[in-house]
This record gives sequence, structure tokens and C-alpha cells, in this order.
Amino acid sequence: MTPETARPPRRRLSVDRRREELMAAALELFGARDAEDVTIDDVASAAGASRALVYHYFGGKQELYVAALRSAAGQLEARLREARPRAHDGAGLLGDLASGLGRYFDFVEEHAAGFAALLRGGPANRTGEVGEIVDGVRQRLFRLVQRQMRVEEPTPVLRATLRSWIASVETAGLDWLEHRDIERATLERMLVEQMVALLGVAARHDPDARRLLEQHG
Amino acid sequence: MTPETARPPRRRLSVDRRREELMAAALELFGARDAEDVTIDDVASAAGASRALVYHYFGGKQELYVAALRSAAGQLEARLREARPRAHDGAGLLGDLASGLGRYFDFVEEHAAGFAALLRGGPANRTGEVGEIVDGVRQRLFRLVQRQMRVEEPTPVLRATLRSWIASVETAGLDWLEHRDIERATLERMLVEQMVALLGVAARHDPDARRLLEQHG
Repeated sequence: MTPETARPPRRRLSVDRRREELMAAALELFGARDAEDVTIDDVASAAGASRALVYHYFGGKQELYVAALRSAAGQLEARLREARPRAHDGAGLLGDLASGLGRYFDFVEEHAAGFAALLRGGPANRTGEVGEIVDGVRQRLFRLVQRQMRVEEPTPVLRATLRSWIASVETAGLDWLEHRDIERATLERMLVEQMVALLGVAARHDPDARRLLEQHG
Repeated sequence: MTPETARPPRRRLSVDRRREELMAAALELFGARDAEDVTIDDVASAAGASRALVYHYFGGKQELYVAALRSAAGQLEARLREARPRAHDGAGLLGDLASGLGRYFDFVEEHAAGFAALLRGGPANRTGEVGEIVDGVRQRLFRLVQRQMRVEEPTPVLRATLRSWIASVETAGLDWLEHRDIERATLERMLVEQMVALLGVAARHDPDARRLLEQHG
């Protein structure tokens, strides 16, 4: 093998790595500020790259923002897809939920900037490419929780309850990153207990929630 | 009084009203889409005004966005400041919470677009003018709930719990606007019950939460 034929794959790897470095720098910035307050120059200087290189790889700020969010969303979803429960010692449905929550917080801990950038998306429905990514993550999260809780067609009360719980998990993730003054394990346990508590409230208003709570109790 | 001296106040009123119409049209759009997907032309055409008029009143899209968000935030806060509880028949702290929640949902119902536009801010901390407005609303909401629950210096567990509850309320507001398939009164009652349930969870992990729950029970 001559150096010339060896070079393309090596260069491609380095291109990918450079792209990833730029996206990681972008996520740090987009996680800390509004997209409109981040410039291509900020990203270039954070990554130790030239402005021209960022344009070369991504075309523009919007494209870079979309690529960076997409990468964060992909990482979170890969995490949640790891189907094998971590500590599933006969704990049933809540064991699945606890194990999913553990994977979610692995992402929060290891990809703090990507998590913050995704949450800037906010709870409101959005349009456009950014909206598709952010809403897509939240919808897949909803369906995952639905599956873990064995809820097939949620009643309005159950739908609102599961959404509330997901909002609570997201907020707990941000609060934890900001303060780190609660043990992660304690926080995860509290969130599972919150699901049970919220189902208890829902059960007072909805027969389906009552049945679900009986299964889980 | 000649028509000439009478004119200035009348014209000023009409200017204010025009500004408000433009901001209302802007809120409708900013509530339905990302700020980056809304153009000055969209706002002008929704308000039946010229593009030049929008520039004349606001200077540019960012200024219009900030003015519109500030107006929605002001309306919500005015609502929450109406100190007199609505149905405060000796129900104690939870009565205050229920009454605050009623005022919050009055805003959700009457200013749906403004509410959605504010929630686009998302749960992540933000910088810049938009961040100040959105975070400002959320911080004042936190302090209000803190006061209503008589929590002076929240422990980490109580802080995370109150934040979770606020996230749950915001999500419930959005879910209600999207679906309207739960009675507003039922939803408000559920949210008060959720606070008690979440405090119950917090009490297992934190002595201050335990004391608070005893007071409220």
C-alpha cells in the first residue's frame, strides 16, 4: 500500500473529527446562549479554527446549529435505545423506568452542553428543522415512557401526567447540572417516586390511571 | 379647545393602539413558530400594516420580538400580582396556591399566543434580552410559589421539587391549549394535588420538605 492510497481514509477520518470538534464547540456555545447570540466567529475561535473552515464544513450558522442539535439528539436517542436495563432485578415496570432514567442522566452528565442546547428548544411546539429535532426527541421520549409504563392509548389525564413527568425530569436534569448539590442517584430515585405520586393524583380523576397504578403498585 | 390642541392625545392613543395591534400580531406568530421563522413581512401582513410601519414602530425584528415578549411577560405578571385570592375560604397555603394557579390559567386562556411565545424560551437559562425576560418570568414565578408555600430558603431537594412543579404547570398549560380535552378546573385541581404529591416524595429525602408537608397537611 503506498502512502497515496492510504491517505484518503485517514484524511476522511480527520475531516469527520474536525467536523465533530466544530459541532462540539458549537454545542457548548448553543447550550450556554441563545442561537441568535452565537456567531460563526465565536464557534471558530472556540474550536481554534478559521471562520472559513466553519463555513466550508457547514455552509452557515443555521446549518451548523441544526447539525449540532441533530448530533446531540442522536446521542441522546442512542443512549435511550440501549435496551438492556441496568439494575432490573425483578423491579417490574418501575425498574424499566428507573433504568431508562439512568441512561437519560448518563447523557445529561456526559453531554451537558448538548442537553442544554436541546432544552433551549423549550416545551412549546416548534416548526422548521430545529422544531422537528427538538419535538422529535420529546415525542420519542414520550413514546418510550408510554411503552415503559405499558400505556397504549393514553387518556387525556394520563397524557398530561406523562408529559408533566417528562417536564419534571428535564427540569431536574438542568437543575442538577446547575447546582450538583443532590446525589444523582437520589434525584433519579425521587423522579421514579414522582411518577408513582403523579399517577396517584391522576388515579383520582381517571379510571385508566387507577388501573395503571394498581398494576404498578 | 380647538381640534389642533385636541389632536395630540387622540393621536397618541391611536399610536399606542397600533403598536399593541402589531405586538399582538407578532405574539400570535412568535407563539406559533420559532423567532427565526417569523419575518417582519409576516407580522405586517397579519396586522394589515405595511412593512415600513412595523420598522417605524419597532426598528427591527429583534426589537419587535423583545417588545412582544416583554408585553406578554408584563400581562402574566400583572395577573399574578392581583393579590386577592379568588376562593380563599380558609383553605390555607394550598388555597393560595390554587388561587395563584387560577390566575395563571386565566392568562393561559386569554393570552394563549403570549403564553406559547414565552414558553418557547424553554427551561434552559438564557442570556441576552430575551433570556432576561423569559428567565425573569420564571424566577418571579418561582419566588411566588416559594412565598405561597412559605418556603424561605429552599433546600436543594425543595428547590428541585418546586422547579419540577412549575415545569409541570407550564407543560399542563400547553397541553391544555393544544387539546382542551380536560376541564380547566379539573386540571387546576390536579396540579394542586401534584404539589402535595411531589412534596410527599421530597419529604422522604429531606427534613425541611417533611416539615412543610406536615404544615400543609
